[in-house]
Amino acid sequence: MDKILRINMTDATVRSQDADKSYELFGGRGLIARILTEEVPALCDPLGPENKLVLCPGLLGDTVAPCHGRLSVGGKSPLTGTIKEANAGGTFAKRMVSLGLKALIVEGQPSSKEWSIVILDKDTAEIRPAKQYMGMNNYQLTDELRTEFGNGVSIASIGCAGERGYRNSTIQITDPNGRPSRAAARGGLGSVMGSKRIKAFVITGSGEYKGEYHDRAAFLENNRLYTKEVLANPISGQGLPTFGTAVLVNMTNAMGILPTNNFRQGQFEFAEDISGERIAELQATRNGVMKHACHAGCVIHCSNIINDATGTYVTSGLEYETIGLNGANCGIRDIDVVAQIDRICDDLGIDTMETGCTIGVCMEAGKIAFGDGAGALKLLQEMKEGSEFGLLLGQGTEVAGKSLGVARIPIVKGQAIAAYDPRGLKGTGITYATSPMGGDHTAGNALGMPGDPGDKEGKVEISRNLQVAMAVMDSLGICIFASFVFENPDNIALLANMVGAKFGGEWDIPKLMGLGVQALAMEKKFNRDAGLTAKDDRLPEFMYREELPGSGLLFDISDEELAATLPF
Amino acid sequence: MDKILRINMTDATVRSQDADKSYELFGGRGLIARILTEEVPALCDPLGPENKLVLCPGLLGDTVAPCHGRLSVGGKSPLTGTIKEANAGGTFAKRMVSLGLKALIVEGQPSSKEWSIVILDKDTAEIRPAKQYMGMNNYQLTDELRTEFGNGVSIASIGCAGERGYRNSTIQITDPNGRPSRAAARGGLGSVMGSKRIKAFVITGSGEYKGEYHDRAAFLENNRLYTKEVLANPISGQGLPTFGTAVLVNMTNAMGILPTNNFRQGQFEFAEDISGERIAELQATRNGVMKHACHAGCVIHCSNIINDATGTYVTSGLEYETIGLNGANCGIRDIDVVAQIDRICDDLGIDTMETGCTIGVCMEAGKIAFGDGAGALKLLQEMKEGSEFGLLLGQGTEVAGKSLGVARIPIVKGQAIAAYDPRGLKGTGITYATSPMGGDHTAGNALGMPGDPGDKEGKVEISRNLQVAMAVMDSLGICIFASFVFENPDNIALLANMVGAKFGGEWDIPKLMGLGVQALAMEKKFNRDAGLTAKDDRLPEFMYREELPGSGLLFDISDEELAATLPF
Repeated sequence: MDKILRINMTDATVRSQDADKSYELFGGRGLIARILTEEVPALCDPLGPENKLVLCPGLLGDTVAPCHGRLSVGGKSPLTGTIKEANAGGTFAKRMVSLGLKALIVEGQPSSKEWSIVILDKDTAEIRPAKQYMGMNNYQLTDELRTEFGNGVSIASIGCAGERGYRNSTIQITDPNGRPSRAAARGGLGSVMGSKRIKAFVITGSGEYKGEYHDRAAFLENNRLYTKEVLANPISGQGLPTFGTAVLVNMTNAMGILPTNNFRQGQFEFAEDISGERIAELQATRNGVMKHACHAGCVIHCSNIINDATGTYVTSGLEYETIGLNGANCGIRDIDVVAQIDRICDDLGIDTMETGCTIGVCMEAGKIAFGDGAGALKLLQEMKEGSEFGLLLGQGTEVAGKSLGVARIPIVKGQAIAAYDPRGLKGTGITYATSPMGGDHTAGNALGMPGDPGDKEGKVEISRNLQVAMAVMDSLGICIFASFVFENPDNIALLANMVGAKFGGEWDIPKLMGLGVQALAMEKKFNRDAGLTAKDDRLPEFMYREELPGSGLLFDISDEELAATLPF
Repeated sequence: MDKILRINMTDATVRSQDADKSYELFGGRGLIARILTEEVPALCDPLGPENKLVLCPGLLGDTVAPCHGRLSVGGKSPLTGTIKEANAGGTFAKRMVSLGLKALIVEGQPSSKEWSIVILDKDTAEIRPAKQYMGMNNYQLTDELRTEFGNGVSIASIGCAGERGYRNSTIQITDPNGRPSRAAARGGLGSVMGSKRIKAFVITGSGEYKGEYHDRAAFLENNRLYTKEVLANPISGQGLPTFGTAVLVNMTNAMGILPTNNFRQGQFEFAEDISGERIAELQATRNGVMKHACHAGCVIHCSNIINDATGTYVTSGLEYETIGLNGANCGIRDIDVVAQIDRICDDLGIDTMETGCTIGVCMEAGKIAFGDGAGALKLLQEMKEGSEFGLLLGQGTEVAGKSLGVARIPIVKGQAIAAYDPRGLKGTGITYATSPMGGDHTAGNALGMPGDPGDKEGKVEISRNLQVAMAVMDSLGICIFASFVFENPDNIALLANMVGAKFGGEWDIPKLMGLGVQALAMEKKFNRDAGLTAKDDRLPEFMYREELPGSGLLFDISDEELAATLPF
């Protein structure tokens, strides 16, 4: 992968360039950090012409490493005002690889209101009018694009949310079944794509690019050993494929950290009803699929295909965070309602996590009652229609919460936090607070780490190590679920060996982790230049003063400890 | 004035204390800066229990200095996230003085949803249930309170906006006619009062406190000379009393800096229709009043009482900023519509400036057309009713603009800027960018200062000097309109003499200006502690890249120059 394709929307030009040699060890999140730091003024308007949208595979995207097909998407976030990398499964990263594309960089902004689709083929990139596709949401849009361009296409697209500049909007990626079920979900990057007036990227052809290895045999051998460990791990080898990520529902509920009723409780009376176990049980009778792979190259298969009671497809990739935040956090016990919410979110192109927290603050405000599934669906309908209230909801949890007079708004740097109450899972709370991405769990989730999760002892170090490790995985383009095996350092060494066998040179654990430190340091620089300080690295006020029922825990990590978490 | 009254709303207690001697030279804005810096955690939730609401007269509030009756109101702003002082005329400051009150500090937050009114009399302060007043807007509310407590009361109150936590909400102060026409308007302090669940402060009695002078004769002599200068000044002595602040409409229009159609132009075709001259002409036929004093002690009389075509009262204090932002900036040429907007804003308790810019971005988004006065009134009706869209609008210009997908949002630190296009009035633009208050013109308006207003040369120094001088005036509690005479340093020396004669000690111009520097330095410290940096001291992006039609000017002050503006 040595080509960088620059699409300038100001003058509708496309320019292909060979990546400078200095980019060799930059991929995925690390490449985004470098491009944004070097090319985007940190103070720019995220929806203005100076921001850039970057799509790229990871450093191991052209190998056979396990779960190597993640697509990183980046830009300055209109939701958080920070740098943003959101990554997704689906088919797009692999297809970019086949075209030899190291990165796709969208620059500028059209002066006209005309929208485009971008068609990428073996040796061509074409900007075409999108007129007939405007106003479509992702399921219809991808159907229509397949009708026009054939079933073999891979699509990255936005729905009405990205068109309208919703700050909760996603970029949806088609999965191996052609459905737009995977999302670069966080931080409103769909609206950045919309600000460039691009409705969809469609890769119609496949190129012949094949990844090269410095030492192919060594790569394959280390890869074999690493993959074996991933499959032998009880979480990535058993729990996740059997029950999907929703396997966590019963676990976090038992721990008392499953956000319930807008983070008022940590246990949900009806957790069982929305658990992974229940989903597996139901789907077994409905012809649904557990053990679904969201991208080629995945060895874990934590995704699923969810059918309704009539056996009809509803959604794919019904995940723990979606269930935790739209289920328990909204007091909704009907898993079929949660599945519908997930489908609608993918269709409109909005972040399920931001959405769950937004519905939660609407319930907190008394707009609808906790547990009111029909009411929640009505709120989604408002976002779909773009009603006045829908426009407000599309701005995310902070704006919705403030507008409705809610004091308890579960956000960090403007972004909704995930489905782990940070008072009872301190390490994850530290990550929420300090990640350059804003409230984010994939940046370093401490669930399952050693020690009492509600005790602060040692958690700064745990969060730091996890944040570095996740930045490594996101730079390699490998799904973070392939890192549960990091508990044994020998496995990290295997991964370092793989990177060495791919690129050459001596690689050990510190050098591998250096990729993560480098990405984080660039991200933090971008954020500092954008005006953020350590004062932004905090949880919402109520986490510090309102005890988590059951355990009575508060978030008790001091600002000084938070400031020491990522000391670069 | 040596008493500080602390009202704790957590436990509904009132505590009177003697002000420490160290507070002697702190009043108005300076006192607020000190109290907030010392007592309020800068990172607190502005609508949470840790924030405090402070009301206080200025240092010369108990003298006969010209225009000494300003009331300073302060707290951490929910709109800007900064420290905030907003000051107003009206009757409240003088009545606080009569009770010997140096400051009224509201602390804590009730755990119940019950609202209160606070009744202040000679030696008593009482917290009473507000039940029968809830939901009332300011005109009805003050009528009812007068019915209950007598016509002689002075009232500081909130309307539905403050009750609902609107971030554009004001605290309205009754004027000498008993009408709630004066506003501590900026930064959403009404919602801070609402967060304490206080609907109104009512001062029922008058105390016997009389200000003391170190050297009464010297004070009176310097005061006589200073007042004579104020009255001899062509602006404060003639323009303002004759036409009100609206005298500026024709002036800024001629200069090409009258914001028109959401800052798209700097000249309004129908400026004449909304000018001070036209208002004076109309009101002469309608029994309206020009030369109205908004508070006792005012010698300028720039306020007015506006009647409609039938001679019926509509509003009082129809000001330039209100007219510029709700008139020209919205393309509305009907001054009677603007007067209605002003009345409704005072009634609901919302900032006319924030409102004008909010309507402007709604027009920019095509929600209603530029010039659509009926549409603008409908938007106000939505805020009054608290409809879903009204709740959004109540969050101010930034939230409304972002929700509606508008790129050109005229704000600094979340607060709408005033009715002077900063591209054509660089000194004021520098103040908008760098004032610790967010986009604000009263913090240092360079209109009328020496030099070409559109040229950047020397404007940093002009803004700095003005910001210091305005912080002095706001600390003394003297209307800033009594500072037009500062163009002659001899007059500043007279004011320094007055402060010396009041408090003793040697006072010269540098010492007097030290009061302003001290206030600004504390404010900047608070903001730094709240996480703000020099990166927040910028104008909106479009001011840097979109030329002001007519002059072709851009805002061309560099970040380095802005950072050098207030170097403390």
